Amino acid sequence: MDLLSIDSLSDARIAALIDRAQILFDDDRSATKPVKSLDRKIVFNVFFENSTRTAMSFATAAHRLGASAISFSADHSSVKKGESLEDTAATLGAMRPDAIVVRHRDNGAPARFADIVDAAVINAGDGTNEHPTQALLDAATIQRRLGRIEGLKVAICGDIQHSRVARSNAKLLPRLGAEIRLAGPPELMPEGIPQLSVGEAIAGADVVMMLRVQRERLEDDLGDAPGEYLARYGLTADRLATAAPDAVVMHPGPMNRGVEIDSAIADDPERSLIRLQVEMGVAVRMACLEMLLA
Amino acid sequence: MDLLSIDSLSDARIAALIDRAQILFDDDRSATKPVKSLDRKIVFNVFFENSTRTAMSFATAAHRLGASAISFSADHSSVKKGESLEDTAATLGAMRPDAIVVRHRDNGAPARFADIVDAAVINAGDGTNEHPTQALLDAATIQRRLGRIEGLKVAICGDIQHSRVARSNAKLLPRLGAEIRLAGPPELMPEGIPQLSVGEAIAGADVVMMLRVQRERLEDDLGDAPGEYLARYGLTADRLATAAPDAVVMHPGPMNRGVEIDSAIADDPERSLIRLQVEMGVAVRMACLEMLLA
Amino acid sequence: MDLLSIDSLSDARIAALIDRAQILFDDDRSATKPVKSLDRKIVFNVFFENSTRTAMSFATAAHRLGASAISFSADHSSVKKGESLEDTAATLGAMRPDAIVVRHRDNGAPARFADIVDAAVINAGDGTNEHPTQALLDAATIQRRLGRIEGLKVAICGDIQHSRVARSNAKLLPRLGAEIRLAGPPELMPEGIPQLSVGEAIAGADVVMMLRVQRERLEDDLGDAPGEYLARYGLTADRLATAAPDAVVMHPGPMNRGVEIDSAIADDPERSLIRLQVEMGVAVRMACLEMLLA
Repeated sequence: MDLLSIDSLSDARIAALIDRAQILFDDDRSATKPVKSLDRKIVFNVFFENSTRTAMSFATAAHRLGASAISFSADHSSVKKGESLEDTAATLGAMRPDAIVVRHRDNGAPARFADIVDAAVINAGDGTNEHPTQALLDAATIQRRLGRIEGLKVAICGDIQHSRVARSNAKLLPRLGAEIRLAGPPELMPEGIPQLSVGEAIAGADVVMMLRVQRERLEDDLGDAPGEYLARYGLTADRLATAAPDAVVMHPGPMNRGVEIDSAIADDPERSLIRLQVEMGVAVRMACLEMLLA
Repeated sequence: MDLLSIDSLSDARIAALIDRAQILFDDDRSATKPVKSLDRKIVFNVFFENSTRTAMSFATAAHRLGASAISFSADHSSVKKGESLEDTAATLGAMRPDAIVVRHRDNGAPARFADIVDAAVINAGDGTNEHPTQALLDAATIQRRLGRIEGLKVAICGDIQHSRVARSNAKLLPRLGAEIRLAGPPELMPEGIPQLSVGEAIAGADVVMMLRVQRERLEDDLGDAPGEYLARYGLTADRLATAAPDAVVMHPGPMNRGVEIDSAIADDPERSLIRLQVEMGVAVRMACLEMLLA
Repeated sequence: MDLLSIDSLSDARIAALIDRAQILFDDDRSATKPVKSLDRKIVFNVFFENSTRTAMSFATAAHRLGASAISFSADHSSVKKGESLEDTAATLGAMRPDAIVVRHRDNGAPARFADIVDAAVINAGDGTNEHPTQALLDAATIQRRLGRIEGLKVAICGDIQHSRVARSNAKLLPRLGAEIRLAGPPELMPEGIPQLSVGEAIAGADVVMMLRVQRERLEDDLGDAPGEYLARYGLTADRLATAAPDAVVMHPGPMNRGVEIDSAIADDPERSLIRLQVEMGVAVRMACLEMLLA
């Protein structure tokens, strides 16, 4: 069994993962160590793209459950010697790890791994396709803070076209009863969806999720004058004032402060769930590893 | 005690390692977890040359037996600050790990480590000299698939002159009763050994082991027109048809498909042992770590 | 509780750490495995500057006590994406490791981490400020070899101005009763301290601690003719002959042999404590981790 996309998860499984993550989160806060349910299990962390937070989060989740995490970095790899993704997958799979966590810049790379290996494959972000554990941790974070997801209005703002985080959340949150509003610079919106402005998306929203904008895109398309992106498309105090009275703010990180989000909002302890997202990330990944391996 | 070369191993030890690897291989396939015979042991993985498969294989072997593997990458090291190999060895040895696995581009580097440190040193490939665990895993793979090594004809084809894999196998397999035939481009054959063509080596062979050719050599010496190396020196269906009826195909990886080996042959489930070699690699390295540390 | 500087440690704690390190050192030499006092604990090794010896030493210390060490390399990090140190700290802290070991080129970076995270933060060297575990291991090494620190004359020679090792030792050793003499090229001496020549500092010293000189400084300021730095400022046999009869030699490594230290002196088994320092380094870091986490 693999975890490649939101679509591959049944409603029951999604609910179970979010519930289990809350328990693991509470246990960790109360210093209750989980049983070593993954004792002797081996998790390969295979990151063809660098990612501090996701790689450390999965490694931490694995170790908390008693598993060993072994990291593979594409910089130190046969990839440089011209080996195909399929041959790399076959080689890693033949070592018989219990799970392989794959981050890759190409859409579908984790699925190609899963076709080849016996191990459980977890998609840790593939190109512009999906990042399912990010969406699960976002849902678990909303659930924890607001007590529900059903009926909430969630604005997701930024580079929607290229964002796997947006894509996975746009699949997951509606299944949990939320209304999703996607908005961003017109150049960065996919075709065929309603074209809202960032202001329209945020007005009345219960949750405002801002996405990282690549600095390259600022230079290429969106102007790079200081504050220009923030003023046109970012989360400012003025825009946040139009959201629901208790609206919370999220960001998958790493943030560009002063670009897609006003720095003071990111640090607002009443509004910002950004650190809580990171903490919940470990709990969600523990729940995912348990589901696949225990 | 160290594992630096095939010559350093007695016949009894070689037999014991291959037999033990088969048991560990079976245990892993049947999900029987080995006892943590190396609990609390610390293995340093010291790779001055990058190698995905070998580093991951040793780390997996160590963790399966309950040891901790700690990786040292020369990119992040005192080596860049001009420290000598001897001083790096003395420093790492003074931390008192139980074993140090060394990969280095210089012949004899692991032996220089072993002269200095108390830890057991395992040669994970040194320059053009030896790669003893690769030869052991190749022997164990042949034993598993063909039931014997005694009396087999083994063709090893490619860049013989620079191949530590060829060198270790050319020492090991004859001790186990196999007949070895070495062949490759004349420019890449060492002096003083019989000069066979690749076709002559493969004819009638029970095992055909192809070696990776460095892309630089294609450009420098051997022509880089598509298919040229394959036609002249590689494993094609035509050449394989001249081997023994049930001949098997091996490659230490990573492969250049379409260069030293026809892609369809590499994937032939009846003939190709390439994935089995990787799987056996973990079992052999477990057996080696057990022998040295348990 | 954190370990950020020598000043942050009480005299009682310093004495306890050094005593405990001796016991852990003895246990390791006698192959007595310590109890897994840090079982289930997670240590993040966060090195923004490369350092083989320090990173491996902390990882080894953590694993010996049963903890898991997870490495973060700035090369593979959000740092490259422009994330601030504070946001990186907040992200890593939100994963709730038990300890974070920080090496950074900026003075005060570990303290900035400690302000943000709940985990125990250990300063593994920050800019030209401090390297407290190095000073503790130096003290423990002197104590082991000479049986006392009280009353000893310790010469510390080299690039005093930029050396966090010198700075931490200059704080620690006088508190333990030693007399410290700092000396080096005039260009590399801080203002406001007595200006001794290297010869004056070494004359009559019980301990001679040489510091690594950066090769860049040789080229910029101090001449790079072979042997020139050694003759003017290094530890030669002639200079060592003026020290106390049983004087010992130390170096935090990695050494430039023939630059700040004569190669034969570095290898003199009667005089050189350089390997002992590395071995004691693991024991001291075990003691520090125990103190902070157990």
